[in-house]
Amino acid sequence: MRILTYCFSVLLCTSLAVAQYAQNPLLVDTKAQTLAPLIKKFQPFVEKYRTISERIINASKNDSTCYNRLAEMCDTYGHRLSGSEGLEKSIDWLVTMLEKDGFDVSTEKVMVPYWIRGNESATLQSPRIKNLTMLGLGGSIATPKDGITAEVFVVRSFEELTRHAKKAKGKIVLFNVPFTDYGTTVQYRVNGCNEASRVGAVASLVRSVGPVSLNTPHTGMLRYNDSLQRIPHAAITLEDAEMLQRMQSRGQKIIVTLKMDAKTLPDAPSRNVIAEIKGSEIPEEIVVFGGHIDSWDVGQGAMDDGGGTFTSWEALRLIKKLGLKPKRTMRVVFWTNEENGIKGGTQYALNRSETINNHVLAIESDAGNFKPEGFSVKGSDSTKALATAIVSLLSPIDANKIVDGGGGADIGPILEKGIPGMELIVESSKYFWYHHTDADTMDKLLPSELSDCAAAMAIMTFIAADLPFRFPK
Amino acid sequence: MRILTYCFSVLLCTSLAVAQYAQNPLLVDTKAQTLAPLIKKFQPFVEKYRTISERIINASKNDSTCYNRLAEMCDTYGHRLSGSEGLEKSIDWLVTMLEKDGFDVSTEKVMVPYWIRGNESATLQSPRIKNLTMLGLGGSIATPKDGITAEVFVVRSFEELTRHAKKAKGKIVLFNVPFTDYGTTVQYRVNGCNEASRVGAVASLVRSVGPVSLNTPHTGMLRYNDSLQRIPHAAITLEDAEMLQRMQSRGQKIIVTLKMDAKTLPDAPSRNVIAEIKGSEIPEEIVVFGGHIDSWDVGQGAMDDGGGTFTSWEALRLIKKLGLKPKRTMRVVFWTNEENGIKGGTQYALNRSETINNHVLAIESDAGNFKPEGFSVKGSDSTKALATAIVSLLSPIDANKIVDGGGGADIGPILEKGIPGMELIVESSKYFWYHHTDADTMDKLLPSELSDCAAAMAIMTFIAADLPFRFPK
Repeated sequence: MRILTYCFSVLLCTSLAVAQYAQNPLLVDTKAQTLAPLIKKFQPFVEKYRTISERIINASKNDSTCYNRLAEMCDTYGHRLSGSEGLEKSIDWLVTMLEKDGFDVSTEKVMVPYWIRGNESATLQSPRIKNLTMLGLGGSIATPKDGITAEVFVVRSFEELTRHAKKAKGKIVLFNVPFTDYGTTVQYRVNGCNEASRVGAVASLVRSVGPVSLNTPHTGMLRYNDSLQRIPHAAITLEDAEMLQRMQSRGQKIIVTLKMDAKTLPDAPSRNVIAEIKGSEIPEEIVVFGGHIDSWDVGQGAMDDGGGTFTSWEALRLIKKLGLKPKRTMRVVFWTNEENGIKGGTQYALNRSETINNHVLAIESDAGNFKPEGFSVKGSDSTKALATAIVSLLSPIDANKIVDGGGGADIGPILEKGIPGMELIVESSKYFWYHHTDADTMDKLLPSELSDCAAAMAIMTFIAADLPFRFPK
Repeated sequence: MRILTYCFSVLLCTSLAVAQYAQNPLLVDTKAQTLAPLIKKFQPFVEKYRTISERIINASKNDSTCYNRLAEMCDTYGHRLSGSEGLEKSIDWLVTMLEKDGFDVSTEKVMVPYWIRGNESATLQSPRIKNLTMLGLGGSIATPKDGITAEVFVVRSFEELTRHAKKAKGKIVLFNVPFTDYGTTVQYRVNGCNEASRVGAVASLVRSVGPVSLNTPHTGMLRYNDSLQRIPHAAITLEDAEMLQRMQSRGQKIIVTLKMDAKTLPDAPSRNVIAEIKGSEIPEEIVVFGGHIDSWDVGQGAMDDGGGTFTSWEALRLIKKLGLKPKRTMRVVFWTNEENGIKGGTQYALNRSETINNHVLAIESDAGNFKPEGFSVKGSDSTKALATAIVSLLSPIDANKIVDGGGGADIGPILEKGIPGMELIVESSKYFWYHHTDADTMDKLLPSELSDCAAAMAIMTFIAADLPFRFPK
């Protein structure tokens, strides 16, 4: 249970980090009394990498390899939900490609949740008949075969539901909550089923968690509270949620039939994929970086998190292409099952529990791969000072920002052990337009932005792996 | 045939006006030697309406009647495609409401095209199986019952198709044309089927005509060329069109099955709805204004053109509410069947062919009802000068812009007779995000913006109807 709870708590971390950074970036105060001298101390070491950094940036420019490879995988195998054929075929293809690139490649088995949505629909029956565009939420139980037909009770908040608890009994509760920030609004997707069940609802719906909608449903994970009756839980669009709200305001009786075939099958085998450039002097010390290879079962998972995994791969390829040989091992991991279990990140740490401290730095890229801006960092003042010194080399691509934060769902178990952590931060104004929707597709990404993300990752990880001293905790 | 040709040519006018204005607003040069003295001449007449204008603006503020009525109709009756039950029920409701408001209300019969899309799907069969999100285009013929399964040939332009005409024979041609401006890009929706048929294609697909996509298909009208074999024609999303383009670039064989049940039934009866405040002194002279009551069969037609009709209605209601009595007749028309025939606008003019010159001004609102900016005007220097003088009274709502243009599909036949014409212009940056999609819904409109649009319409039309002289041609 501890792991499950832990998994859940980090499940939201990545996207929360995106949301929080977007709204309130807490810049590291590089002029602070404690930080400035530290940065100064690190600068001479970092300065030695200026030429290499320029070579990396130049090599990444005008190279669409990363974009083209990601497009090929996305177009060829489709979505990559845990348990799906698409995920495992994508992993097979990745292993082949990584071997072709000449990396040390391995995989490790991970048993992952296997949820499938099956057929699903939501139909407004009264006051008029209309199909409601919807997506069941990951992990939801099915409805009975004939569906659940019930009156709908619309609320704007948990508080409103509590205040009118009696009105919800026997009904389908719809949480019509406008998007404010992801961390706040996603609670209705994750916990709405529980709060609705608590007051006797027979099913629950949530307005999709996103700021902009072109009749766009968003899926994502829910978490059932084991002490409550499980009820089906699905997302409808902003458009339909607002319509139902207006109908309720008019005093109209709203009846919806919800049908969901969703089921959870026994856990299925998947794999983390690991590709390395072995360190030339201290190979046992590792800079680990990457993203998650799985996606939701909508769109192409191009942004979440195809871009994060492929720009990490591209970073490793750039280092190899330029003939650079880091002192420590540079390791890219394509973690599996971040979206609905974080089993990949958990298994990775479990398999290395005795040697976890050999990781000198862990970086995750799971906040989108639009124009890179820098890194969020978790660690001591020394960690942040060194990161700040290094990103000064990213000025040519305007990615020299360091903010407090760091982390990521997959590297959570590593960071828990006190290893410094980072996350690539990018221009994120449209991240939640596409997140967990059919619009998370290749056309939302730009080859030039992927190249810059790869360059930023390559420079940060190569320097971390090559410095004459270990990255400070 | 003349009418048909005419209909088509004006079919695109409205949206073209939006697009052209958005990209290149041609402001009327009010400082020009010819215009400035005319404006000065009109100013004293207009000045007398300053207090009334302020009363209208104040009365419209904080009054959500317009928004709430439009929402009630949209939510209650659904879309309003010509021939549909939704359209006729909406018209019934409108007539009742207009009578309740105390207007002189009448309807006139219009026979309208009756196209229904039926079930439809597009399925990628090779290189992998995937459902392609699609919408058949209005007027398209059906496929055979088992669909059309054929190889896809993707082109970026008519020119590319012509250059590779031999490759298109027996295939489904996909026009994957990025949105530049509506006038340019919509040609592929309207004529793609003909150009594909000309080179022997068995069906045609078009990338949806819109600048932004969240996997969003756009429908709209096509026009078959009678000298060519008719083939089915449908829109797919930007996302899928780009994917098929990439597959073709990789040399992959693309096979799609297109199934469409679409059919055109015999013309169905519909109605124009007319509501008036009779003129107190010259009732036979008419200021006519309004929008179209029909919509496409997706979304709610809230923006296109629910807003245009309801803000015109609201303008009339404001005049009545304030007890204002114009010298000439103020007439709001809810034209039917603008989207796929313009039969309402055509019938309106035909029914009044002997008295068309009694119209002193015609205004259409079919460019969305976001923040109003002013009017586009068709007419002489005097027409533009008077319009410029009048919109100076709209400064409190920042809607005092006059640009060249004017017109609109429904008032086209009136303007053809030399009557001055205008169109309300609004902030239009997102118009083509929603146009002809499931996202054209109430949540895209704001009560305050509808109120300002209504105030602008009320002030322009009341003054035009009440001036001591006829609006100059």
